[in-house]
Amino acid sequence: MNFTINQNVINESIFIFEEKEAYAGVRSIAEKIKKDIDLVFGVRPTSTDEWSQLASCAVIYGTIDKSPILDSLSESGKIDIHELRGKNEVYLLQVVEAPGNGVDRALVIAGSDKRGTIYGLFRLSEMLGVSPYVNWSNVPPKRLEEWSLDNGYKYVSKEPSVRYRGFFINDEWPAFGTWVHKRFGGFNAEAYDHVFELLLRLKGNYIWPAMWSARFYDDGPGLANAELADEYGVVVGASHHEPCLRQGEEYKYVRGKDSIYGDAWNFRTNEEGITRFWADGLKRSGKFDNVITVGMRGEADTAIMGKEATFADNIELLRDVLRTQNHLIKEHVNPNLDQVPRMLALYKEVEPFFYGDEQTPGLIGSKELEDVILMLCDDNFGNLRTLPTEAMRSHPGGYGMYYHFDYHGGPISYEWINSSYLPKVWEQMSMAYDFGVRELWVVNVGDIATQEFPLAYFLDLAYDFDRWGTDAINKTHDYTRVWIEQQFGAFCDLEELKAIHRIIDGYTRITHNRKAEAMNADVYHPVHYQETDRLLSEIDKLMAEANALHAKMNEEAMPAFFSLVYYPAMGNLNLQRMHLLAGKNHYAARLNRMEANQLAEQIRACMQRDEELVDEFHAIDGARWYGMGLSEHIGFTKWNEDECRYPILMQVIPARKPRLSVSLDGSTLQSEGSGWHLNKLYMRDFKRPDATEATFTIYSLSDQDASYEITCESSWVTCSSYAGKLDGIHTTSETITVRLDRNAMNDESAAEIEVKLPSGVCTIIVDAQLPDLSGLPDGIFVDTEGYISIEAEHYCIKQDAGQYEEDSAGFQLIEEYGRTLSAMKVFPTTRYFTAGEDAPYLEYQFVVQEAGDYEVKLYMQPSNPVTTDNTLHYGIQANEGEIQVWNTIVRGQQVSEYNRDWATGVLDNIRRHISQIVCQEGRNQLRIYAVSPGFVLEKLVIYPVGKKPAASYLGPTESYYVGKS
Amino acid sequence: MNFTINQNVINESIFIFEEKEAYAGVRSIAEKIKKDIDLVFGVRPTSTDEWSQLASCAVIYGTIDKSPILDSLSESGKIDIHELRGKNEVYLLQVVEAPGNGVDRALVIAGSDKRGTIYGLFRLSEMLGVSPYVNWSNVPPKRLEEWSLDNGYKYVSKEPSVRYRGFFINDEWPAFGTWVHKRFGGFNAEAYDHVFELLLRLKGNYIWPAMWSARFYDDGPGLANAELADEYGVVVGASHHEPCLRQGEEYKYVRGKDSIYGDAWNFRTNEEGITRFWADGLKRSGKFDNVITVGMRGEADTAIMGKEATFADNIELLRDVLRTQNHLIKEHVNPNLDQVPRMLALYKEVEPFFYGDEQTPGLIGSKELEDVILMLCDDNFGNLRTLPTEAMRSHPGGYGMYYHFDYHGGPISYEWINSSYLPKVWEQMSMAYDFGVRELWVVNVGDIATQEFPLAYFLDLAYDFDRWGTDAINKTHDYTRVWIEQQFGAFCDLEELKAIHRIIDGYTRITHNRKAEAMNADVYHPVHYQETDRLLSEIDKLMAEANALHAKMNEEAMPAFFSLVYYPAMGNLNLQRMHLLAGKNHYAARLNRMEANQLAEQIRACMQRDEELVDEFHAIDGARWYGMGLSEHIGFTKWNEDECRYPILMQVIPARKPRLSVSLDGSTLQSEGSGWHLNKLYMRDFKRPDATEATFTIYSLSDQDASYEITCESSWVTCSSYAGKLDGIHTTSETITVRLDRNAMNDESAAEIEVKLPSGVCTIIVDAQLPDLSGLPDGIFVDTEGYISIEAEHYCIKQDAGQYEEDSAGFQLIEEYGRTLSAMKVFPTTRYFTAGEDAPYLEYQFVVQEAGDYEVKLYMQPSNPVTTDNTLHYGIQANEGEIQVWNTIVRGQQVSEYNRDWATGVLDNIRRHISQIVCQEGRNQLRIYAVSPGFVLEKLVIYPVGKKPAASYLGPTESYYVGKS
Repeated sequence: MNFTINQNVINESIFIFEEKEAYAGVRSIAEKIKKDIDLVFGVRPTSTDEWSQLASCAVIYGTIDKSPILDSLSESGKIDIHELRGKNEVYLLQVVEAPGNGVDRALVIAGSDKRGTIYGLFRLSEMLGVSPYVNWSNVPPKRLEEWSLDNGYKYVSKEPSVRYRGFFINDEWPAFGTWVHKRFGGFNAEAYDHVFELLLRLKGNYIWPAMWSARFYDDGPGLANAELADEYGVVVGASHHEPCLRQGEEYKYVRGKDSIYGDAWNFRTNEEGITRFWADGLKRSGKFDNVITVGMRGEADTAIMGKEATFADNIELLRDVLRTQNHLIKEHVNPNLDQVPRMLALYKEVEPFFYGDEQTPGLIGSKELEDVILMLCDDNFGNLRTLPTEAMRSHPGGYGMYYHFDYHGGPISYEWINSSYLPKVWEQMSMAYDFGVRELWVVNVGDIATQEFPLAYFLDLAYDFDRWGTDAINKTHDYTRVWIEQQFGAFCDLEELKAIHRIIDGYTRITHNRKAEAMNADVYHPVHYQETDRLLSEIDKLMAEANALHAKMNEEAMPAFFSLVYYPAMGNLNLQRMHLLAGKNHYAARLNRMEANQLAEQIRACMQRDEELVDEFHAIDGARWYGMGLSEHIGFTKWNEDECRYPILMQVIPARKPRLSVSLDGSTLQSEGSGWHLNKLYMRDFKRPDATEATFTIYSLSDQDASYEITCESSWVTCSSYAGKLDGIHTTSETITVRLDRNAMNDESAAEIEVKLPSGVCTIIVDAQLPDLSGLPDGIFVDTEGYISIEAEHYCIKQDAGQYEEDSAGFQLIEEYGRTLSAMKVFPTTRYFTAGEDAPYLEYQFVVQEAGDYEVKLYMQPSNPVTTDNTLHYGIQANEGEIQVWNTIVRGQQVSEYNRDWATGVLDNIRRHISQIVCQEGRNQLRIYAVSPGFVLEKLVIYPVGKKPAASYLGPTESYYVGKS
Repeated sequence: MNFTINQNVINESIFIFEEKEAYAGVRSIAEKIKKDIDLVFGVRPTSTDEWSQLASCAVIYGTIDKSPILDSLSESGKIDIHELRGKNEVYLLQVVEAPGNGVDRALVIAGSDKRGTIYGLFRLSEMLGVSPYVNWSNVPPKRLEEWSLDNGYKYVSKEPSVRYRGFFINDEWPAFGTWVHKRFGGFNAEAYDHVFELLLRLKGNYIWPAMWSARFYDDGPGLANAELADEYGVVVGASHHEPCLRQGEEYKYVRGKDSIYGDAWNFRTNEEGITRFWADGLKRSGKFDNVITVGMRGEADTAIMGKEATFADNIELLRDVLRTQNHLIKEHVNPNLDQVPRMLALYKEVEPFFYGDEQTPGLIGSKELEDVILMLCDDNFGNLRTLPTEAMRSHPGGYGMYYHFDYHGGPISYEWINSSYLPKVWEQMSMAYDFGVRELWVVNVGDIATQEFPLAYFLDLAYDFDRWGTDAINKTHDYTRVWIEQQFGAFCDLEELKAIHRIIDGYTRITHNRKAEAMNADVYHPVHYQETDRLLSEIDKLMAEANALHAKMNEEAMPAFFSLVYYPAMGNLNLQRMHLLAGKNHYAARLNRMEANQLAEQIRACMQRDEELVDEFHAIDGARWYGMGLSEHIGFTKWNEDECRYPILMQVIPARKPRLSVSLDGSTLQSEGSGWHLNKLYMRDFKRPDATEATFTIYSLSDQDASYEITCESSWVTCSSYAGKLDGIHTTSETITVRLDRNAMNDESAAEIEVKLPSGVCTIIVDAQLPDLSGLPDGIFVDTEGYISIEAEHYCIKQDAGQYEEDSAGFQLIEEYGRTLSAMKVFPTTRYFTAGEDAPYLEYQFVVQEAGDYEVKLYMQPSNPVTTDNTLHYGIQANEGEIQVWNTIVRGQQVSEYNRDWATGVLDNIRRHISQIVCQEGRNQLRIYAVSPGFVLEKLVIYPVGKKPAASYLGPTESYYVGKS
């Protein structure tokens, strides 16, 4: 017999055993499970605290040492609670026969502690097909007739990989704030019940509450928020500038001339008041489950001391603050300080105070920080910075990481909509773990809404690093598939699930390349390499797919589809499209192309669609999300949203006579054919052996009928059209595809296409001379365009380091990571190498026409240095030349919205570094050596000094290599 | 008794004595005079060749040695023809009593030669109030009742100052070509009759016929054009690349494989054919009155030999060409070569061939060029280049000058409409004369139409240099007044004449600062120093005045008013306005100002008006000018008109919530008042002692009602408004004027104006701290803005050079010359000086707050060097520092559309040169020394190194100086 649930079972028996001794919070969660079961089977199970009322089949839950029935089952040998004892957040799920009188069979859920039991309960829901987002996003589970577990089924969960795992509700106005007030009446316990449920279902245990205007300890009302968290076992933390269980906003409500807390946020001039303020915070909230922030910053997240204070002054102040805080915690929370989780954020100026300098010792290693979790953070844009050195990793308090899926700050905020890309989260957070950051992971999710997907990933990664972490390279696709099945498996068929997968992958990858808020008309080049048109066509495909899905989506699944997939995808894609069209509009307008006016209308339509999407998001599912789309997201000029500017629509005035121009697509070359100006255009596309077609476009410059005629004497060249007319109003451009029949070329290598235009004749010279490939091996790149562009994964030789398994290291391919194809990174991620000695390398081979000095431009992830010396090195060697070792971090670069190098890197999501090599005519080899951790190579471009390839955002498209199909 | 003309006289007597012996051309001109008299008196005089038919009062004209009656009057002592004999183009006008039987009184017009008589006849017309433009522009003369000359009246004209004076009809398609075909059926004798009449009435004698597609010697039809010219005494020349009386287009009609002229325009490979071609040209046309072009260029005005030819090859070829041509001229025209006017143009590459270099002697001084007029030219943009050195001035052939009022070529053509400014023509052409260029002046007038005003000036200057030349400094105003009276005196009152004067002055000055074709949205800075708004307001005033005149203009005067004044003024001004508005539109759009959309509509209206103006020009006066407005004139991207682009209209999308911004006028400072961004603006206008008011403007960024409120606690500051609302549709901006009551300031020197906006509060800090002027003399400049800008005429000391009258030299003020106020130039214009020895100088005095290194930026006319060494020096000295001598011509600068320095100079009509000086805190003096000819100083700007004043086209507005009112 199995343990079976179906309507009969639920109807015919009192089903769930609810011990009086259970934690109140666990009982509350059990109530949610009952609702989940109702959703799955259509019947709500009943529960009882009287064993005798149970019928043949029961669900029994409890926490060890808080559950007589578990004790009894353990004593009778039915379960083994020793597997749980002493463990953190572990649960046992087991089918037990004859657990007691009158009950034939029970599913026992036993937790090692409160959260263990809760995770066990939610595990049951998940097993029944209930999504963690069931209530948050209204994801309906699939209705089941019956569900069963084999007799003898037993599962014991692992301890979570990271101790504290959670998120930060931040930047909560206007979106989350509006939402929470409309839906729950404020930042109160009703709202937090909703949030905590989500957190716990996602196997998180830690939260930083909203704090822009909200006060967690007052808004419950009163302490209701904190009490609810405590009931559920949710550990409450606070951001880096909110010490001693006091929220940032609190002081301004209690300060004043006659206040017992004084009227200055200054530990030097108002030590007594501030100390009392902290003491009262600890007295009030110390009884709950917390990670207490220690340290101090200035008001509203500013530097703590004025500019006149010395470095030593600051360190001394911070040490005094810590000493006082520790004393207060001992007095008011627990005399055993090592039992009180505490956290110091090494953020902004606090980081140098921690490390000190040659003259002034910092706080590092001081006893005030013993057992304190040292919280590191990314650069606000998802790139880790300084990580623990090997020596530092033994710090008894361990390390934390504050990561961002949302950021309100410079250079440009992003808080409107999800813009995170799983491979990046994987690459960065698994590196954090590798570097020993395992005590606390918290991610800023802004308003939560639209961040559900990466949030689930972040918490799953923290919960089960073995499954999803460093060793799970290139498994984000699997994760995405599983996640999509979890949300939509009930109502979508496999094709639809795959379409959702493509949409999520597609939009997050595009937004990884450039966030919507950081987009503008000047990001992608409007014509070079056709990067704008390529991206537009990708976007159009994704939008069409999303719209098609939307049109046929099951009504029950629609709310979740809209909020989890459609809105974040379409919101992002529509804006990207708008800015790309604006780039095209501006380019076209400068050339007086009538197309500009059509583009302007399309941009207007995008603006309109953007508003509609927000309106639809706000209206769908009974206005469930009202408010969540309110953040500004267009035309940021600085980090804050005011002063934002919409794209300029450029209108052109038609020329007063028929005029056309011809333009070679992918280049800025163009001509009207006038005898007095440039009227010969060189089409070089067919110099590539793999080129099968190329295009040019005829544009109208007036609103008068204008005709063109195309002739070509070479029979091996065909054009997709030989004559046509543009009216400049409805038809403003026509793209002509040129194809070659290489077999018919005989000895010819060039052809002339004559395009007769109103102002003259433009001659397109088709240069189809192929490079000499004789004797070249597969994989070798060949210069046909004046430069060689190589995707990092297209190396010829990959040389790993280390003779033995345990010290081996080498580049590995991270698929679909990087802006154009993929990325190469060395694993293990913590290792340093010496180029030419123990360093792994990648070798590329290529052919150039002329010997001389060349520049090599590397495109890398914008990783920050993992140490404080501001270096991130790599090595480069051409042919038999010397190995040059370069620092990719320019002098003075630092994480600051005012630092252009860093800011460019995070906005572009790329770091570029140029070095110089000497090439010989013909074949060359180039080796790139790993040196520092954090080096993630995406692409290389090699070109003669002084002959930079045409400007672009993504860099030149990849060059031809022998064997490329 | 007087010599009187009235209707009775004309009716009652055969009036004009027309000798059979007179030149046919003179008789033809006499017919035109009869028509003129008809226009003035309403009766057409009759003429007779029978003395006996004459009545009491007669007009007698003749050319000495071709007129028996003059011989007879001379013999009888009634006139003295010795005053005319041997003179060039001189005439006598004398009232003679009893000239013969039956005639009481005659007005005798006696010419020293054919043209002398013709000028005498036209002189009579002019004295009757007939404009030279009577037929060309349909300028009706004032109707007279009676006109008389005293008995004994006698006037003998002077010989013209310049021997050959004329114009070049050029760049004649599409405008002149369309016009001449519609009106006369082609470039034929009927058309040239019209043109020659204009030339002769303007006292010119020389023409280069149209030559883009026209062939003067074929289009007559046949030789009719040349015969007509010969009849009228019009000397025919041809441009620099049309030797031996052959027009540029001719060769292509006669060349060919079997042609006797061969099929190559190459003197080396086809010497025989080319020689024959020239010989036949000379045989055909040598009998007429010509200045024969000698030398040779390549086809279609290109270099004569290929790139592979050496310098010496080229010189040798040219020498051979000249030798052959001289030989042909001797053979076919006149064996006495010194009696045949010949001309060699020192143009483009011919100039170096003339001068040679150290290794290779040039053609200079060679016997092939003896007696040949050496024609120099400006840089196509009205700036002379290499002029004869003192040693060269004795060249027996003398010098000519080819000047431009119209140019088709780089960097940007100007051929649509008059854009010449008389002070510039005066400054340049009088310098040409001073340098000995007195044999030939020809000006390119393009289509002639709209160039009438500067053309009259150019020919008057050439005809009577004593009256209008070097000594007539600052007399162009007088010339303009006289010219306007001549055209409009008949129908306009004094106020109207003054208004026309202001309009002509105004529009030509604006176009002198920047030609319409070279205007675009990026020329004037949209906000700095309010240069765009200032110019717009000037333009609006001029356009309003022109429209007011147009509305009340007398019907008879309207055609001439429209073509000579209204169309060129409005055409120019409307386009300038359009481009200025485009600059504002682009600036406003980038800041999301709703004003941008209104500006876009205004630009559209300008485009529309531009078309209407051409249509009106083409329709007025029975379509007299049809075709003359056809040249492209908007959006040149290169020198040729195709590929031109109209201004882009930038549209903004309204922000989604009410938003306003505040901007300090004249600067780019602006704010929306957000607490997170710049919200304090420093208004520094009142640091100037002469500032009485300053303004700031509030702009709407949305189409929603948005209010502002202004408060200021300082009672000495008043604002023109304290509250208001913009709707963002009709009202998109509001300018607030700030005024100070300095008497009420007490000890205060700064005030804060708070502007409450939807996004926050912007504080304008009014800094009204005045500089300390105690002890400073009048005329000393004081730094209040971080720089000192000085108009050149505001010197403190002007030091002339030379002890005696005859060698004195010094700067003189040229009024209203220069882009912002006036200019200073040294006279005599040919002199060189050594700074610190014999050089005149101007001394400026100024006060700066801080000692240190300063830059001095001079704004000068874009004069070219007058010699081949490419130098144009000036000297500069600060305080007791050394005199630095600088060359304003940067290394490698040359007259070429590809040379950016030169091109910038001619488009901007300014040359800028920066040097560095050391200033002391407080008072400083700065001397500018004249060194080379051609140095024309307009403005100086002094600022600390590294602190350039805000960018602008005209440079910073002038700074305060003590005593400035």
